[in-house]
Amino acid sequence: MGATSFLKRLIGAGGGGADRRVAALLGICRALLSESGEYASTALAHDAVAAYQTLDDEGRELFFDALARDYSPAAEAVMRAATAYQQDPSPAHLGELQSIVEPARQELFHRLNMAPGGTAALVEMRRQLLGKLKLHAAWGAVDTDLLRVLRSWFNRGFLRLERIDWRTSALVLEKLIQYEAVHAIAGWTDLRRRLEADRRCFAFFHPQLPDEPIIFIEVALTRGMSTQVQPLLDIHSPVENPANADCAMFYSITNCQEGLRGISFGNQLIKQVAEELKREFPHLRRFATLSPIPGFRRWLDSKKINGAEGPLLARLGDAAWHLGEVPEALQTLLMRLCAHYLVDVKQAEGGNAEPLDPVARFHLGNGAALERLNWMGDSSESGLGRSAGIMANYVYWLGEVERNHESYFREHEIVASPAIERLAKECPPLG
Amino acid sequence: MGATSFLKRLIGAGGGGADRRVAALLGICRALLSESGEYASTALAHDAVAAYQTLDDEGRELFFDALARDYSPAAEAVMRAATAYQQDPSPAHLGELQSIVEPARQELFHRLNMAPGGTAALVEMRRQLLGKLKLHAAWGAVDTDLLRVLRSWFNRGFLRLERIDWRTSALVLEKLIQYEAVHAIAGWTDLRRRLEADRRCFAFFHPQLPDEPIIFIEVALTRGMSTQVQPLLDIHSPVENPANADCAMFYSITNCQEGLRGISFGNQLIKQVAEELKREFPHLRRFATLSPIPGFRRWLDSKKINGAEGPLLARLGDAAWHLGEVPEALQTLLMRLCAHYLVDVKQAEGGNAEPLDPVARFHLGNGAALERLNWMGDSSESGLGRSAGIMANYVYWLGEVERNHESYFREHEIVASPAIERLAKECPPLG
Amino acid sequence: MGATSFLKRLIGAGGGGADRRVAALLGICRALLSESGEYASTALAHDAVAAYQTLDDEGRELFFDALARDYSPAAEAVMRAATAYQQDPSPAHLGELQSIVEPARQELFHRLNMAPGGTAALVEMRRQLLGKLKLHAAWGAVDTDLLRVLRSWFNRGFLRLERIDWRTSALVLEKLIQYEAVHAIAGWTDLRRRLEADRRCFAFFHPQLPDEPIIFIEVALTRGMSTQVQPLLDIHSPVENPANADCAMFYSITNCQEGLRGISFGNQLIKQVAEELKREFPHLRRFATLSPIPGFRRWLDSKKINGAEGPLLARLGDAAWHLGEVPEALQTLLMRLCAHYLVDVKQAEGGNAEPLDPVARFHLGNGAALERLNWMGDSSESGLGRSAGIMANYVYWLGEVERNHESYFREHEIVASPAIERLAKECPPLG
Amino acid sequence: MGATSFLKRLIGAGGGGADRRVAALLGICRALLSESGEYASTALAHDAVAAYQTLDDEGRELFFDALARDYSPAAEAVMRAATAYQQDPSPAHLGELQSIVEPARQELFHRLNMAPGGTAALVEMRRQLLGKLKLHAAWGAVDTDLLRVLRSWFNRGFLRLERIDWRTSALVLEKLIQYEAVHAIAGWTDLRRRLEADRRCFAFFHPQLPDEPIIFIEVALTRGMSTQVQPLLDIHSPVENPANADCAMFYSITNCQEGLRGISFGNQLIKQVAEELKREFPHLRRFATLSPIPGFRRWLDSKKINGAEGPLLARLGDAAWHLGEVPEALQTLLMRLCAHYLVDVKQAEGGNAEPLDPVARFHLGNGAALERLNWMGDSSESGLGRSAGIMANYVYWLGEVERNHESYFREHEIVASPAIERLAKECPPLG
Repeated sequence: MGATSFLKRLIGAGGGGADRRVAALLGICRALLSESGEYASTALAHDAVAAYQTLDDEGRELFFDALARDYSPAAEAVMRAATAYQQDPSPAHLGELQSIVEPARQELFHRLNMAPGGTAALVEMRRQLLGKLKLHAAWGAVDTDLLRVLRSWFNRGFLRLERIDWRTSALVLEKLIQYEAVHAIAGWTDLRRRLEADRRCFAFFHPQLPDEPIIFIEVALTRGMSTQVQPLLDIHSPVENPANADCAMFYSITNCQEGLRGISFGNQLIKQVAEELKREFPHLRRFATLSPIPGFRRWLDSKKINGAEGPLLARLGDAAWHLGEVPEALQTLLMRLCAHYLVDVKQAEGGNAEPLDPVARFHLGNGAALERLNWMGDSSESGLGRSAGIMANYVYWLGEVERNHESYFREHEIVASPAIERLAKECPPLG
Repeated sequence: MGATSFLKRLIGAGGGGADRRVAALLGICRALLSESGEYASTALAHDAVAAYQTLDDEGRELFFDALARDYSPAAEAVMRAATAYQQDPSPAHLGELQSIVEPARQELFHRLNMAPGGTAALVEMRRQLLGKLKLHAAWGAVDTDLLRVLRSWFNRGFLRLERIDWRTSALVLEKLIQYEAVHAIAGWTDLRRRLEADRRCFAFFHPQLPDEPIIFIEVALTRGMSTQVQPLLDIHSPVENPANADCAMFYSITNCQEGLRGISFGNQLIKQVAEELKREFPHLRRFATLSPIPGFRRWLDSKKINGAEGPLLARLGDAAWHLGEVPEALQTLLMRLCAHYLVDVKQAEGGNAEPLDPVARFHLGNGAALERLNWMGDSSESGLGRSAGIMANYVYWLGEVERNHESYFREHEIVASPAIERLAKECPPLG
Repeated sequence: MGATSFLKRLIGAGGGGADRRVAALLGICRALLSESGEYASTALAHDAVAAYQTLDDEGRELFFDALARDYSPAAEAVMRAATAYQQDPSPAHLGELQSIVEPARQELFHRLNMAPGGTAALVEMRRQLLGKLKLHAAWGAVDTDLLRVLRSWFNRGFLRLERIDWRTSALVLEKLIQYEAVHAIAGWTDLRRRLEADRRCFAFFHPQLPDEPIIFIEVALTRGMSTQVQPLLDIHSPVENPANADCAMFYSITNCQEGLRGISFGNQLIKQVAEELKREFPHLRRFATLSPIPGFRRWLDSKKINGAEGPLLARLGDAAWHLGEVPEALQTLLMRLCAHYLVDVKQAEGGNAEPLDPVARFHLGNGAALERLNWMGDSSESGLGRSAGIMANYVYWLGEVERNHESYFREHEIVASPAIERLAKECPPLG
Repeated sequence: MGATSFLKRLIGAGGGGADRRVAALLGICRALLSESGEYASTALAHDAVAAYQTLDDEGRELFFDALARDYSPAAEAVMRAATAYQQDPSPAHLGELQSIVEPARQELFHRLNMAPGGTAALVEMRRQLLGKLKLHAAWGAVDTDLLRVLRSWFNRGFLRLERIDWRTSALVLEKLIQYEAVHAIAGWTDLRRRLEADRRCFAFFHPQLPDEPIIFIEVALTRGMSTQVQPLLDIHSPVENPANADCAMFYSITNCQEGLRGISFGNQLIKQVAEELKREFPHLRRFATLSPIPGFRRWLDSKKINGAEGPLLARLGDAAWHLGEVPEALQTLLMRLCAHYLVDVKQAEGGNAEPLDPVARFHLGNGAALERLNWMGDSSESGLGRSAGIMANYVYWLGEVERNHESYFREHEIVASPAIERLAKECPPLG
């Protein structure tokens, strides 16, 4: 494979700038694609992945440009196939058209995947691409194709649910500390408390990424539905006997792989975890979340509040507003505003849009019901910043999840408890 | 999911004929596809797979018909998208065209795969489809789409090489007995001999089919290159010390999954096995095959042989021709004809075609060299029937495999030893 | 380690007769024992085990003689320590006496165990010793010490219960075929039937003998208590749905390691298997055996039967007595004699002895109850030869096992059903 | 098992003081021992272990007293058996004597081991017993018997060597942090550095204590023999490429189980680890330690130093003596004294005794050679306190280990390098 050896030497030499490296990489990619499918070489795939991994920002940019430009269907060929189909819409012409419109990138990604570690490399490649996608509209087509192959390989049928506990490899546990996105894990002692006997943690894994959680969820087994997250996060809280628990509180769920953005795993994870917990603890009566309301303050700040409520809300401008005694009127007002935000405020105008709050969209879309709002449910700085400290309980009533999900899916109908409906109705009019 | 429950009852009742069962299955498929991707239900996928598995021949036929008819792109929509593209070949229009020409079947197969055992079910579905594909030209498009998703999931990056020996699960070993396609395994005693210390057996496995070999290869570690297969198959042959071996003889390679036909694994398997063996036995000097020549007799029978050779060859008509003394002239003639068959006879007219013999195509395409022909290499009934008992040694010279493969790939050049070249040249002219 | 090297060369040369080989082995043993405990070498242990394994019958005999003669406590030293203790029974003198009477063999066995495969080698050594123990009374002390260390290492706390099914390694399954002692397994097809969905098989394994079952039991999940073993052994019998079963029939239990004779595992195995089955099938109502009565015919043949019964029984002399119609009087008589044999016939004279029948001793001692006798329960040649075809059901009533075991243990009281008691009472007097 | 139930209730009630609890435990032990061996119940063993675990200090004291008092051989019976043997030293009488002198405790320990977790419970029991053994001379016999059974079960043949790295379970890694006895591990970050690519860590595990390392060793792969431990312990030190290393430095070895004190594992561990490393890195040229010299300062402080050296050494009284410039005369003096201490100072008077320094005893006894002393090899507080900061390199020359060990074992000959011999000779005379 003389040509490749030359390219490899070129890369190995490393002396070249980004453009020479990218040229070398593209040379290997061409060699990889030029093989007939059956003999495409793992060695070439390995070289290509290795060459990609030596690129810096500039090199990646050049490479993504080339992928967008040179690995798309040729307009002329598409034109020809489209015309042929229009003249005679036979299966043969359809097949030709299908095959012509498919970008060579997709086959390239399939072949790169043959390298050891190829799947992980492609997930990382997409992460890097997404990071600058906004600046490069042309990369959109590359992203579409990468997402397409990744979606196929990360089909939920290929994921395994695994329990994570203190017996798990440190290599994996370390990643939880690193990835946790909702309530940051302060270190090994904090993590250990979250894996004690009254907690459960589960993750999805994929056979090709054995040490990488795809998504994970943290659960507390409690007596009664939790109203505040700080006690759950307190590393000194006493470890309860899970046999006495009647609730499973999902208090954190984190997607770990930025490179898989757009492929949804959470819905399936919650369902499987609920089944798993029901098997281990048949006496559990309630599966619920203690969830942040990430968009409440941002939304509230964008609103103009008139009348008597204006000055009350102005207090939030003081960073210490929640310390000492909070006027009951303010508490009442915030709870009503929050209920209104969750129940009535939508992403778009029009009756049939989804809620503005992303966590609400996720759980309601999953078929959960919005059950309760908790004053000072999260008194941490981030909790106050996100939602004035309010947290929500969404409940997964196993018998109703499917029906709720369907009516949400059809009409974006929101299932909320009477108490929350009432709060929302009592909300003062907003400007 | 009221509709589905009804369909399930319908199926459960079982009273219905094939058409009612298929109608029910198609109902579930519709429900499965109508979900937004993120919430598509594993339960529905499971129901669909279960419903499919209750179908009989007639039911499957109806189902495949429906897949071909109702899950293809709508001609009108394709027409529209093609026109839009022709008027303005923008990325957006290309994207639309790409998405319009993609058959809904592909998404359906992805969703079916979410069911436990979904991948295995789809492999089986394709096996059943292939079985009657010749009678149903319209199913070709279904096959194309099934092959496409399976090819993506059975990407070589996802396969694990595993050694198979007497410690392997009986569940897997039993499958070797069942699948072996080259030299039938007569039972457990036969199998056991093939897994002794002077043998190696390797297979590719896929994470979704944990108990199913995808392809497997049997290797004998020998002193000198084997010329005859019967001693290798003899269950009473003494077990040799592998430390004394200098050759690894690949004497059988079997693709196990008819449903994966068209996805090639053998090339990669041989490469990885050779590396594995080289690691375990650094002193091995030669990796070679002892291979059947499956098409030789069939080809020979189709030829008219003139002159003195005619009567000689006529002896092959006698089933016992090989017993007792075979005239040396006949032996010489057959060896020459066989060399000619392997070296000169092609699939198609024209200089650049591939060899007619499928095993030759496979090993030469992999980069092996045709090294030697062995008289009475396989004296079994099937060996005599396939190739008048002659067997071939193909050698994988590790340093030349890549170069051989390339020149085969470019020009279908055949690398053969001088001895074989000479034999081929001495072959008398054929009519 | 010059001395050892010399001995090793001596052994390696192999030219020497048994006595030279044994001398070499004993030299290695001396070297092994002469090390201080902390530095005793695994390499020496390995050499000793290897040297032992090259011995033939004659060599082993010489070696066992030496173990009996040279590795026992020295009479003089024992005498001295006994006298010292008698003069002053202090803890120090007791300690000395304890240490003096302990044979050096025990320490030797501990050190041999350090070799890779040492435990298996010692189990095999005892098997070989037991085989000729009757001819060599002096070896009794060697056996005592071997049994002592093996009993310590095969403490039940170290055994793992493992389910055996068709996923199990062929290496282990092959051993079941080889070891099965009650109802011979005719080959892989027979074995496969015994591992189908309506059967269970469990074995104890020891960490040091990973591929060797210590003891195994075969269970059939049935509807109603089985009366005949042939249907259970029929490889063509239909596989039943275990969900419909209400009985677990233990129909075969086999100790695999002759070298562990005298260490009892069966009682524990049955208890753990019953628990395991109860967990998997909570609806099982009865755990029972279908057991041979191995000593019945032998006992019967040793008796002189008077009166009218004599001629009836004489029919048993005809090998075909059970074919065609068996006179009801003969059947009645045999059932009564068998009940009498199981309930009243003891190993020794005197009221408090254990039953003569070894299987009865085992199950009754475990706390089972003798529930029923089955005419032609085992019509195989061996079944007819052992017990005129009669088989017994012993039932393990989980709530009563402990109480039954205790009363058996105290007074050898036999718990039998009223039906069996009646049969036994109706038995005619014997000479 | 009425009696036991009563005792269990008694324990369960928990109201009783230590003496009632111990009485209950002893009752269970009696029941456990009273069973015939074959039927001794796992359930009883479990109850006994559970009852033991509820005891407090006082309870354990009472229990150990009872074990020492009531589970020893009866003096009278020993007397009788000794007399019988003296009158007739037959094998039968020897056997009787052997069996009479064996304390019932040993059988009790064997039976307790049948409980799930029994082995771990007995290791813990011995740890607790050893903690107060000095105050209770009578417990010595109990310790002897416990050690005897534990030594049999922790026979080296039963231990598995396992590599420990960042993939290991957090449960096990946490124990390393907790147990490390030579160079304390400051937390997870420190531990992680010790498990990087240029380090190796191995431990012995026992099948009955799956999550408990028995002993572990930490190794650094270095270029050249390390002279100082602080760079090895520096969590910010760069991770080197192990392919460039030529030395394996054993810089920490820790026995983890106090309850196994007196059973030596280190010698075997070092041998197996050296073999393992040689396999992974064939180019390693040297296996050496960087070892503390724990007894040097203690010994030095007990000596009276005369002449000019007195005032020099007096500087050690200043805690900051090693900061700033240390006079070369002091450094030279300390190095000479240390060499003398290691080479010439013995545990006992007389030519043939072992070195006073325990680490020297360990490595020299293992067959290592004392190669080099390193000034300020360990400048930590504990390093200064133990050995004025000096550390030793012991080298395991694989070809000489056995010979060194033998000559050490026979004559306690110390193998030291010429440089160290010279240092020792230059040491001034001590008072």
